[in-house]
Amino acid sequence: YGKNTIKFLRLHREGKKHFVKEVEVCTHLRLTSAQEYLDGNNSLVIPTDTIKNIVLVLAKKNGIPTLEQFAIDICKHFMTTFCQVAYVKTYVQEVPWQRLHENGVPHVHSFICVPDGIRFCEAEQCRNGPLVVFAGIKDLKLMKTTQSGFEGFYKNEHTTLPERKDRILCGELFCKWSYGECKDFDFDCIWNKIRECILEAFSGPPDCGEYSPSYQKTVNSIQMLILSKVSQVQVIDVVLNNTFYNVVDMKNLGLTNDKEVLVPVEAPYGSCTCTLGRK
Amino acid sequence: YGKNTIKFLRLHREGKKHFVKEVEVCTHLRLTSAQEYLDGNNSLVIPTDTIKNIVLVLAKKNGIPTLEQFAIDICKHFMTTFCQVAYVKTYVQEVPWQRLHENGVPHVHSFICVPDGIRFCEAEQCRNGPLVVFAGIKDLKLMKTTQSGFEGFYKNEHTTLPERKDRILCGELFCKWSYGECKDFDFDCIWNKIRECILEAFSGPPDCGEYSPSYQKTVNSIQMLILSKVSQVQVIDVVLNNTFYNVVDMKNLGLTNDKEVLVPVEAPYGSCTCTLGRK
Amino acid sequence: YGKNTIKFLRLHREGKKHFVKEVEVCTHLRLTSAQEYLDGNNSLVIPTDTIKNIVLVLAKKNGIPTLEQFAIDICKHFMTTFCQVAYVKTYVQEVPWQRLHENGVPHVHSFICVPDGIRFCEAEQCRNGPLVVFAGIKDLKLMKTTQSGFEGFYKNEHTTLPERKDRILCGELFCKWSYGECKDFDFDCIWNKIRECILEAFSGPPDCGEYSPSYQKTVNSIQMLILSKVSQVQVIDVVLNNTFYNVVDMKNLGLTNDKEVLVPVEAPYGSCTCTLGRK
Amino acid sequence: YGKNTIKFLRLHREGKKHFVKEVEVCTHLRLTSAQEYLDGNNSLVIPTDTIKNIVLVLAKKNGIPTLEQFAIDICKHFMTTFCQVAYVKTYVQEVPWQRLHENGVPHVHSFICVPDGIRFCEAEQCRNGPLVVFAGIKDLKLMKTTQSGFEGFYKNEHTTLPERKDRILCGELFCKWSYGECKDFDFDCIWNKIRECILEAFSGPPDCGEYSPSYQKTVNSIQMLILSKVSQVQVIDVVLNNTFYNVVDMKNLGLTNDKEVLVPVEAPYGSCTCTLGRK
Repeated sequence: YGKNTIKFLRLHREGKKHFVKEVEVCTHLRLTSAQEYLDGNNSLVIPTDTIKNIVLVLAKKNGIPTLEQFAIDICKHFMTTFCQVAYVKTYVQEVPWQRLHENGVPHVHSFICVPDGIRFCEAEQCRNGPLVVFAGIKDLKLMKTTQSGFEGFYKNEHTTLPERKDRILCGELFCKWSYGECKDFDFDCIWNKIRECILEAFSGPPDCGEYSPSYQKTVNSIQMLILSKVSQVQVIDVVLNNTFYNVVDMKNLGLTNDKEVLVPVEAPYGSCTCTLGRK
Repeated sequence: YGKNTIKFLRLHREGKKHFVKEVEVCTHLRLTSAQEYLDGNNSLVIPTDTIKNIVLVLAKKNGIPTLEQFAIDICKHFMTTFCQVAYVKTYVQEVPWQRLHENGVPHVHSFICVPDGIRFCEAEQCRNGPLVVFAGIKDLKLMKTTQSGFEGFYKNEHTTLPERKDRILCGELFCKWSYGECKDFDFDCIWNKIRECILEAFSGPPDCGEYSPSYQKTVNSIQMLILSKVSQVQVIDVVLNNTFYNVVDMKNLGLTNDKEVLVPVEAPYGSCTCTLGRK
Repeated sequence: YGKNTIKFLRLHREGKKHFVKEVEVCTHLRLTSAQEYLDGNNSLVIPTDTIKNIVLVLAKKNGIPTLEQFAIDICKHFMTTFCQVAYVKTYVQEVPWQRLHENGVPHVHSFICVPDGIRFCEAEQCRNGPLVVFAGIKDLKLMKTTQSGFEGFYKNEHTTLPERKDRILCGELFCKWSYGECKDFDFDCIWNKIRECILEAFSGPPDCGEYSPSYQKTVNSIQMLILSKVSQVQVIDVVLNNTFYNVVDMKNLGLTNDKEVLVPVEAPYGSCTCTLGRK
Repeated sequence: YGKNTIKFLRLHREGKKHFVKEVEVCTHLRLTSAQEYLDGNNSLVIPTDTIKNIVLVLAKKNGIPTLEQFAIDICKHFMTTFCQVAYVKTYVQEVPWQRLHENGVPHVHSFICVPDGIRFCEAEQCRNGPLVVFAGIKDLKLMKTTQSGFEGFYKNEHTTLPERKDRILCGELFCKWSYGECKDFDFDCIWNKIRECILEAFSGPPDCGEYSPSYQKTVNSIQMLILSKVSQVQVIDVVLNNTFYNVVDMKNLGLTNDKEVLVPVEAPYGSCTCTLGRK
């Protein structure tokens, strides 16, 4: 049980310059007891309202140096304060505020919301177990308009899909990785590096791209690049939900449509999930 | 990988009387191969477009006798047809069309959408493993305006919640159960019986209700009643996401508010999850 | 300017029997002044926080006898209390709680949310003008599986739609009507009567239905029936957003699909709007 | 009546360099006839399916030089082709794809979705009337963490809001303007200029900002700046839906909270709308 979508803004001021971190936190606990379920005895139950208070108090006291550190702080607090807590998990998601710029000059206290991929993290701990940290990006929508195909697949009497050498690849990416044993990582720096890896593996070199023979291969390329470039990452989950773009048949309208007008097919949509770790 | 939100309507006609079943299907596969991820070799990959075709063809051929039977049919088809499939999972969710009635007379072909709890089911199978079936209800919103409190909970310096003997209990229920070894069950009849159990355990006798000392106890009561009344159910997951109703303090507006005007607090919201099975 | 989505629950108790009305209110004002826009002089500005307080206070004092009466109360309060208000508009929308029944017995204090069409109303007044009241229903999803076609339409070189004598008609209805000069109407009774008119005009007789040659004609039938049966209604707006159901072509899958499996096309969707009043 | 959410991607290629414009189009018509409503006579009705075809054909033939030009093309086509069309309106909204950059180098065919304010436009024409063009931006979320207050407002017994000299101003902006008589404008350039005006008027100079005494004044400042800097704009509508950030009272948790931890209040929310034109 726990509290979901604890939303708040942490404002930090250095003179006239302001820094904001707006987050949404979910914290869940499992207690050692079962009497609250069986007998309605609440004596060990930490109210979800108290959970919320603790999250806000920690934000006030420690600030949010990084999402990950904040999630770690919350887990540690519950484990050390309450002996009836058997397990704690905290999810933290960021509202993507970016500092405004006017003609290249950063503004001291104005921000704009730019949701081009949402950063999140998760920390969890069982009593007597290690504190495990995950981080990730979600709702990242990417498209490449060529250098993608799908050929040589398995066919039987239910196959109607034609082979394609040149299609649009468009999808929403979810990517979550674990840090294994948690040390003093520079979580912000790693997160940015991984985001760059995703964009690079998805799109290939800027002047020509790189051919994707399937969603599966693209997912794997993303994972391989991250594992090779970011040593702190142990395991990576990637989910690619793809929107297919259908080339509109304009023959009966007297026109030839050379992949100029395409219609997105939002339902049903394909999905490809893969988990990859180090040996 | 697989295909999500395959939406379609299955229309069945008996003379002038029409029967509709509109569903949303997600079917996911895991293959025995990894070459599509590593080498871009698609020779064993069943396109998600083919998955969609198969779902539609099975709906055409077999109809949708029950959601559960349809999910079972899909899983069996993939397991028996494709030897490269290591695992298959199918989720089926119903669009809640109900037959229209005019002055008590059922209409032969008109329907209204009544989303008071969405029915869904899931079937999954590993190669050489049993076919397992789950069913459930989600998005079921219930409220009781008394016979609910929360007292005697754990307190420390971060506790600000007052004890309450009479509060509103309002929540959205998710309930999913497994049928263990799958036999010839009357899935429709069981589903309706379980829905009744949920409503009964949540609200208590119609003339007086039954006191709930916590969300946890209410969740447990629902599970206990289902296990006692429906022998086919093996394990039950319940999630209760609750909306707290705050009694508006009207003292500074010169009024006494005796729980007459309450404001829902939608974020953050508490959540209580429990899994209960038979011994 | 004003306050939107003021959500609250009004609880009314008669002994052990409880009655709930949960609503969402939006109240907007236009002031006689412009100085708040031009000079930042707020001396006549009623804060939106005060607007919220007033809505809650009126709910506490008067209750919500009907949505319409509550909207009228709010408008009257602003007009009579603040001479700087030039115009006031209030929208009230209901959360569709229904009393739970167990084996036909109504429960004294338990409710279920059944969103099969949302009731709303609107009241507005200019200073020195009449108080005008509107009411309506929205998000009402209806379907008929036959007795609908579309033939004889205008054709040119951009027409690819075939004529159809037997298609599925499925849509989401929005219906809003005005009451003209506002008297002591029984708003609950009228609303229910109009809802019945909509269902009847949409679906026709329960044993055979009635043929719809177009969305336009169906919209008009709904309006005509309401105007003929409900004398208090002066003008009616209807919007019918329709979802087309595409019969899946299964020829290349070796099957004949006699309107048994159909796929909803949710985007793009057609829309048909009509306003009809009395002479 | 008409067709809504006609979604498509227009792909334009110059050698290896690709350009994308993904849009969502709604086109509505009013016919000179009423017989389709009254008699079910469809002879003058242009099917919404044909409307969709025409939109796609025009995209294929003309491309989408600017959203505005495309909306104009559609309106002109309907007016000149169909004499039964009395009125036509077209709304075009853009999916905010931006070209990907790797280390500052633009990619030839990869794009990322960056929804920091959605661009849209509208064109409409009555038969024998002028073609009128509107453009706008919506879903633009901005925040300033100081230089905002609200004081000196009207007070009575329902006022509980304290005066504030330093609060957070956070809101979602909707801004729509008309171009009056439509000439050969550089719509892309104007749109970007107006977006800059909005950001500048909202936030003030980058080193210190500018004090906002109310939402009303901020809305007016945005409008005044646009009218003064962009001569082509005739009238501007601005809607500012604001999210209030509540400073968490931590006294009973033994802490002083100097506007460091704030909680967004998403419902109810204030709204401020203003229309401003030239004399």
